Amino acid sequence: MQTPSSPDALPGLRINRARLLARLDALGRVGALPGGGVSRLALTDEDRRGRGLVIQWMRELGLRVTIDAIGNVVGLRPGAEPLAPVMTGSHIDTVRAAGIFDGNLGVLAGLEVVETLNEARVATRRPLAVAFFTNEEGARFPPDMMGSLVYVGGMPLAQALATKGIDGLTVGECLKRGALAGSAPCGDPEVHAFVELHIEQGPKLEREGLTIGAVDGVQGISWTEYTLTGSPNHAGTTPMSLRRDAGYVVANVTCYVRELARELGGAQVATVGAINLKPNLVNVVPGAAVFTVDLRNTDEQRLQEAERLVDARVRAVAAAEDVTVARRTLSRFAPVRFDPAIVARVERAARELGHPCTRMPSGAGHDAQMLARVCPAGMIFVPSEGGISHNIRERTAPADLEAGANVLLRVLVELASG
Amino acid sequence: MQTPSSPDALPGLRINRARLLARLDALGRVGALPGGGVSRLALTDEDRRGRGLVIQWMRELGLRVTIDAIGNVVGLRPGAEPLAPVMTGSHIDTVRAAGIFDGNLGVLAGLEVVETLNEARVATRRPLAVAFFTNEEGARFPPDMMGSLVYVGGMPLAQALATKGIDGLTVGECLKRGALAGSAPCGDPEVHAFVELHIEQGPKLEREGLTIGAVDGVQGISWTEYTLTGSPNHAGTTPMSLRRDAGYVVANVTCYVRELARELGGAQVATVGAINLKPNLVNVVPGAAVFTVDLRNTDEQRLQEAERLVDARVRAVAAAEDVTVARRTLSRFAPVRFDPAIVARVERAARELGHPCTRMPSGAGHDAQMLARVCPAGMIFVPSEGGISHNIRERTAPADLEAGANVLLRVLVELASG
Repeated sequence: MQTPSSPDALPGLRINRARLLARLDALGRVGALPGGGVSRLALTDEDRRGRGLVIQWMRELGLRVTIDAIGNVVGLRPGAEPLAPVMTGSHIDTVRAAGIFDGNLGVLAGLEVVETLNEARVATRRPLAVAFFTNEEGARFPPDMMGSLVYVGGMPLAQALATKGIDGLTVGECLKRGALAGSAPCGDPEVHAFVELHIEQGPKLEREGLTIGAVDGVQGISWTEYTLTGSPNHAGTTPMSLRRDAGYVVANVTCYVRELARELGGAQVATVGAINLKPNLVNVVPGAAVFTVDLRNTDEQRLQEAERLVDARVRAVAAAEDVTVARRTLSRFAPVRFDPAIVARVERAARELGHPCTRMPSGAGHDAQMLARVCPAGMIFVPSEGGISHNIRERTAPADLEAGANVLLRVLVELASG
Repeated sequence: MQTPSSPDALPGLRINRARLLARLDALGRVGALPGGGVSRLALTDEDRRGRGLVIQWMRELGLRVTIDAIGNVVGLRPGAEPLAPVMTGSHIDTVRAAGIFDGNLGVLAGLEVVETLNEARVATRRPLAVAFFTNEEGARFPPDMMGSLVYVGGMPLAQALATKGIDGLTVGECLKRGALAGSAPCGDPEVHAFVELHIEQGPKLEREGLTIGAVDGVQGISWTEYTLTGSPNHAGTTPMSLRRDAGYVVANVTCYVRELARELGGAQVATVGAINLKPNLVNVVPGAAVFTVDLRNTDEQRLQEAERLVDARVRAVAAAEDVTVARRTLSRFAPVRFDPAIVARVERAARELGHPCTRMPSGAGHDAQMLARVCPAGMIFVPSEGGISHNIRERTAPADLEAGANVLLRVLVELASG
């Protein structure tokens, strides 16, 4: 193997597009939905099969695989020197009806970088690691980015294992059931730098005709679950003035959340994504309701203001309806700024490879923001067609997937050479 | 047996309160919920066991039991002459978390009347029938009052049997599975008159300190199900202006329905009771939604106006959100006027027995309104504590249950003597 002394030693090295697409396609067939798209909620049987496939690929590429107690998987390619590794990766769990790129691209592009380096017999100074983190989506177990959060010591392992999912099972039970946990420790990783390739999941790059986003930060995320208790009653005989309608309170707050996002403007987004009424029947006034509010902003002060206003509205409307309120935080992360040197490296690599690029924040949460707690970190975005994501119609053009993976290759080699 | 020539021949006859309460209690234990109340959704295993118990009681009282093809059960006490019977009854299916009186009282008070007459060795001129009708609540299969509707020929049997429930099974499948249907024909019953005792399920009688409601009619009922299709998308990366949020449309309409009921005033009530979002996850903009609207009014013109306004709102908000709309009528019944002579009889019986009484409409639909299509019909209401119904805390005081059953006894004996 040759050891490049600088990135200039590898100017012509490129990933293999067909091989990357083939892996994306193969992993996308695990948990594939009949109408297209994929469903691999964290720690389900589908997720277990997806994990098995990626671990098999890691071993075939000669990576040394370690798995920690929350099921995070790291495949290590040794470097010329026994230093802290440069890491890339993402997640392979999905929402309930997802596309095949969200998360998976970052993991499989990492493997493609490894295979490209293997083929070219390139040895990097630092080791290179490709990771996938457990339960990034949070669609089954809150909070999202749980695996990477535990990996960097941001949440005690025991707390994560005890977290109950939407089906009542805990993370610990599901890890055990699927034999998905390993013995590697978590909470204090040694990582030199972390770079994650991901689809944008929004419309900005496509709308501006750009190929690469050099992600400079991540919006703050606030997920709250409200449980409302009123009184179920007969829909025909209960005068409007005597109702204690938990469903009406949810509806009022849902409308308010929309207004609020418009009023706060800028990067503020606000979503009521889940509503569960009891008894949920046509002829009974809803006596109880559980619903969620997802608020995001790049500015922590504004995010706190939005949280305060939503909570005040819930309490005011509930009080007027004689409905009681319980509140639970499902997830809360402050906005994150990525390492300026890595952001600049991504921009430069894109420019050198001839891909139009912009700096931009991420609207979604990503594992990279957790890694940013312990090392310099950054992200590379590629366009999402129509801005569509968390949807079986999620798609990124093959040329864009290839461009993103080549930028990742270049940035990783640079970092691993430094 | 003596044959009374006039109601004056039986001035002292009274039902047995303890026996009535014991049957209510025993039937309430079938499908009892751990925290109180009962759940016997139509044609479930719990309903099957409840039906078996009531049929057993009918046979023990010497009634001749017939069951028709939709599972309506009629127990006949022969009269002195082979005339069309005077019928009473109601239903024993319940909503998902119900009290033990809704419907059950009307059936078991009918049995108590029979037992009182049996004990006193009273033969009536006309036969007396006690019936319970299948799927009155409509909580599993729309429309409500399905059994009595089929009984009077208001819905073809085949259509009823093909109706799919909330769990995807049809009425026909469930009847077959539980062996709940019989061979008696339906659609053209011979009934001389029908009187139903029921709890009010509203607050009027209690608030006015009254014991008996002489029900003079039933509100018109309109149940509509809307299916909305937008686009599921990422809650963090999708700008507010690009959303096609089916959940927001539901929320907007739910708030509007509340405003509308207030604006129309009077007897108008309006309820969004069921909301089902897809994918129903915290971090995904709801891409699809199914929800129901329950509208009721004593005035058919106003009810039609309310339906028109709600539909216009659904379509306007959905269009603005780029969400498509499909509409399905689950149930639609025009307001009903009960037979004035029967209403007057109920009033007079209550007065003679010393129970304060008022004329009032019913806010809920009842089997009696279906029987009103084929014979003179009426209803007797007793108070619901706090107006609470379709709720495990539904309750009526024993003295009121007794008063209602005694009014029923008197009215039935009068009608069966005429």
